[in-house]
Amino acid sequence: RINGDRLWDMLMEMAKIGPGIAGGNNRQTLTDADAEGRNLFKAWCEAEGMTIGVDKMGTMFATRAGTDPQALPVYIGSHLDTQPTGGKFDGVLGVLAGLEVVRSLNDLGIKTKHPITVTNWTNEEGARFAPAMLASGVFAGVHSVDYAYSRKDPDGKSFGDELTRIGWVGEEEVGARKMHAYFEYHIEQGPILEAEDKQIGVVTHCQGLWWLEFTLTGREAHTGSTPMNLRVNAGLAMGRIFEMVQDVAMAEQPGAVGGVGQVFFSPNSRNVLPGKVVFTVDIRTPTQEKLDRMRARIESQAAKICEDLSVGCSVEAVGHFDPITFDPVLVGRVRDAAERLGYSHMNVISGAGHDACWAAKVAPATMIMCPCVGGLSHNEAEEISKGWAAAGADVLFHAVLETAEI
Amino acid sequence: RINGDRLWDMLMEMAKIGPGIAGGNNRQTLTDADAEGRNLFKAWCEAEGMTIGVDKMGTMFATRAGTDPQALPVYIGSHLDTQPTGGKFDGVLGVLAGLEVVRSLNDLGIKTKHPITVTNWTNEEGARFAPAMLASGVFAGVHSVDYAYSRKDPDGKSFGDELTRIGWVGEEEVGARKMHAYFEYHIEQGPILEAEDKQIGVVTHCQGLWWLEFTLTGREAHTGSTPMNLRVNAGLAMGRIFEMVQDVAMAEQPGAVGGVGQVFFSPNSRNVLPGKVVFTVDIRTPTQEKLDRMRARIESQAAKICEDLSVGCSVEAVGHFDPITFDPVLVGRVRDAAERLGYSHMNVISGAGHDACWAAKVAPATMIMCPCVGGLSHNEAEEISKGWAAAGADVLFHAVLETAEI
Ligand SMILES: NC(=O)NCCC(=O)O
Ligand SMILES: NC(=O)NCCC(=O)O
Repeated sequence: RINGDRLWDMLMEMAKIGPGIAGGNNRQTLTDADAEGRNLFKAWCEAEGMTIGVDKMGTMFATRAGTDPQALPVYIGSHLDTQPTGGKFDGVLGVLAGLEVVRSLNDLGIKTKHPITVTNWTNEEGARFAPAMLASGVFAGVHSVDYAYSRKDPDGKSFGDELTRIGWVGEEEVGARKMHAYFEYHIEQGPILEAEDKQIGVVTHCQGLWWLEFTLTGREAHTGSTPMNLRVNAGLAMGRIFEMVQDVAMAEQPGAVGGVGQVFFSPNSRNVLPGKVVFTVDIRTPTQEKLDRMRARIESQAAKICEDLSVGCSVEAVGHFDPITFDPVLVGRVRDAAERLGYSHMNVISGAGHDACWAAKVAPATMIMCPCVGGLSHNEAEEISKGWAAAGADVLFHAVLETAEI
Repeated sequence: RINGDRLWDMLMEMAKIGPGIAGGNNRQTLTDADAEGRNLFKAWCEAEGMTIGVDKMGTMFATRAGTDPQALPVYIGSHLDTQPTGGKFDGVLGVLAGLEVVRSLNDLGIKTKHPITVTNWTNEEGARFAPAMLASGVFAGVHSVDYAYSRKDPDGKSFGDELTRIGWVGEEEVGARKMHAYFEYHIEQGPILEAEDKQIGVVTHCQGLWWLEFTLTGREAHTGSTPMNLRVNAGLAMGRIFEMVQDVAMAEQPGAVGGVGQVFFSPNSRNVLPGKVVFTVDIRTPTQEKLDRMRARIESQAAKICEDLSVGCSVEAVGHFDPITFDPVLVGRVRDAAERLGYSHMNVISGAGHDACWAAKVAPATMIMCPCVGGLSHNEAEEISKGWAAAGADVLFHAVLETAEI
């Protein structure tokens, strides 16, 4: 078993970097706090005798050597970046549990045939730069480096400039590494494991996603002196689209979600009808057919809503992945490890997207989940117990060991 | 008649300060650009031999002496501040036309019994600091100086600190001045005069207003992994409130408006359901009974919408004035002047709020309006013709002269 106290201490240590305002973290990607988190992780890895590689996306690969020079590494990855008002565990748990696996192997003096590479993917959250899982997406060949570098945050700063600014542009070509297998351990970010009183989620699938960024064009005009019939009201169109997205998602129950997290009104003055309204609709479901249908419905109904109000409407897909099925052999190893260790477990479908979704394009991949209190995540109040954290790390340890071979 | 070319030149000169991004202006109150605009206006006034007083709200009073030391001044006021994406004429026309009246009197060597005081009220727009017409509201005793100083812009900067920063905290107690009469000349900001092909709007009333700032509290949670039935979706509640405000305003047609210009989502990340949503509903109508009814309906229906979604809802009134009736004697003088000068005219109700609304609480007050192209205002594309500008200034000249007495 791994050392649960040591893992917890690392989590609490990392959480001191980029503190939030309500007990969580604001360590958004490519900020100074992100750089500080990276340095701490690097120092910890080097102390374990690992060698650090960094690719052109800033993704960090910390490797513990294997005994067979020919054998490809087993990867354990997740992310150290957080939401602007994020929790202490989302992503961080997976990276530091990977390091804890290495520490435990070192303690036990166990050598593996395959190297083990603990990975910190850049910009998993997608909060500053859409889409989410950007670096793993480039790694898997889904996006180009140029595309990634050109992505802009709400202040207009580009990913490329910010990566350079924090000093983490690496030498390695992105995606040049080959993987024997990829594991990712993450908090569930949903309510099911806790409700079913299970310690381990054996992740068989991940639901697919579209992020549809709408730009509505209204006529900027005075809110007081512009008669109702002369308004080209982009805000009203947005309100109707919110309700419509809700209806589209409800029509696909169970197993579908839809909502909006980000809105920009322009010029955003109380007495000016907005000239421009930008917002992103997030829809997800594990079923490919539903995902396609939801997207089509939302786009056509939004066009109709805008047409009725003479509002201009354009849509850009700023994030997308199809539903993912994880590797059955690795999934089986996770299930067997949980069983062997005496942890209660169940199959789950990941509601959130993860770097594992992109890794699954280029290697056998799977995930392990632990519960989180109330299913709450992307909230500073995100919480897990030390025991939950340790149980999943034990399962990770066993499944990785079986895959990396002694 | 006044000098229309000279008035236009002043307008174009002022428009160079705080240029916008699309041909208009961004000279928001208490910015560096506002200070620069104030300095230019001050220099112009001093060149005409006027004396400048400034009160604790930063309002500028430029006075041309009268012949009777006992006589109270006739005020001509409006504002030099603009919206973030404002036009070149909204407010500015009224201040500079006041100065042009003084220039014309100087040219003609006419002395008046009553002094004439051209006034630049601070923060008319309310774009940075709600409510609008803040300084004239303090002048009229509607708000306290402390309340005004405590108002914050979206960056959290206070009115008091920003007024100090730009160096325009004056010595005068606010409201200490007494007015013989108050005139304000403004672009219509609505479509009626142009549609009816009239040069002059004789402003008999101004519609009343409520700015209702809603703060909705949702549960910050992941947009992907949070099932629909576990969401506390403040964004959806906002969307429903937008539609409801539209319905409430449409139910009071004709002669009522309702809409939303400003929205803040928090934390405003694509994959986070908002924990907090803040937006301001702007409702207006010339009828007191309708205004009261609209407010009551909106507040009660919003409470119901939020309750259905378990979303927290609080409302703060950040702007308000009841419908205003302007002084019949001054209104008559405006109408007579237009008639005498041969300008086509009609009675209008102001759709926007103006400093004249607060001045009307402490003195006989009225307004004059000229058309603007397409009724468009609070838009950088706001436009008027030189002829329109001059016609209204001529009417102002005559009405003021009659009131200030030769
Ligand atoms: N795990 C996680 O929160 N990833 C961010 C990408 C997403 O929105 O699913
Ligand atoms: N005239 C004008 O635009 N005033 C701003 C206050 C309002 O919203 O009516």
